[in-house]
Amino acid sequence: METILDAANKLHKKVKFFFIGSVDEDGFPNIKAVLPVNKREQLAQIYFSTNTSSRRVAQYRANPKCCVYFADLLLFKGVMLKGVMEVLEDAETKERFWDKGDEQYYPKGVTDPDYCILKFTAQSGRYYANFQSEDFEL
Amino acid sequence: METILDAANKLHKKVKFFFIGSVDEDGFPNIKAVLPVNKREQLAQIYFSTNTSSRRVAQYRANPKCCVYFADLLLFKGVMLKGVMEVLEDAETKERFWDKGDEQYYPKGVTDPDYCILKFTAQSGRYYANFQSEDFEL
Repeated sequence: METILDAANKLHKKVKFFFIGSVDEDGFPNIKAVLPVNKREQLAQIYFSTNTSSRRVAQYRANPKCCVYFADLLLFKGVMLKGVMEVLEDAETKERFWDKGDEQYYPKGVTDPDYCILKFTAQSGRYYANFQSEDFEL
Repeated sequence: METILDAANKLHKKVKFFFIGSVDEDGFPNIKAVLPVNKREQLAQIYFSTNTSSRRVAQYRANPKCCVYFADLLLFKGVMLKGVMEVLEDAETKERFWDKGDEQYYPKGVTDPDYCILKFTAQSGRYYANFQSEDFEL
């Protein structure tokens, strides 16, 4: 029988976009749509690549409490994960997630100081389907 | 010439889903996808209908700071609005936004105590297009 965690995992592998929620310096929630990196391994740790200089990176450093949301809106299914965001700039991590075509965002290549990896570690989740929802732990 | 506000307004009329961001009692951002009510009038005031008993309604009452995000993800265009959420339960407002088919969510009809209207009032916005973004006031 498929558990909630199985269903959430399946949706995680399938969706095209993720939405990151964060809290800004004035205490307002912020939302941004992002593309995932190529390696989509597990629900408990989701990686994104972004510009080190971006407004959101400063925000995650000041307040790492985040959520990641993804959904199949036409099927009314969604998952919200709560956890913390880390900003990784070490060479090994940057190489691990570097992908063909990333030069268009980071012209200096894999060592571009404006290229960094965001690592989201989920602590808990909530699965929505058919206008009902259920919490799960990770 | 089309201003950023025009572009944001156009997107607001077009999108099928909105994403509401809020901050929960533990300081974590939360995201939920929602359908707008039928009357989509202006960017500065966006209305949603929801269950009065829901977890989010309690959250908006405890902390009204919210954001509303909507996007055309395939065109890489998005808008994030920051502002405050009010929970309205007066008869006039409930009647104004009541729509055909709402009985499936609120079986007792327009006077159902579990039916309420959320009114989001935006204070500022940010428009994203082509990997660039710009703030605007409302």
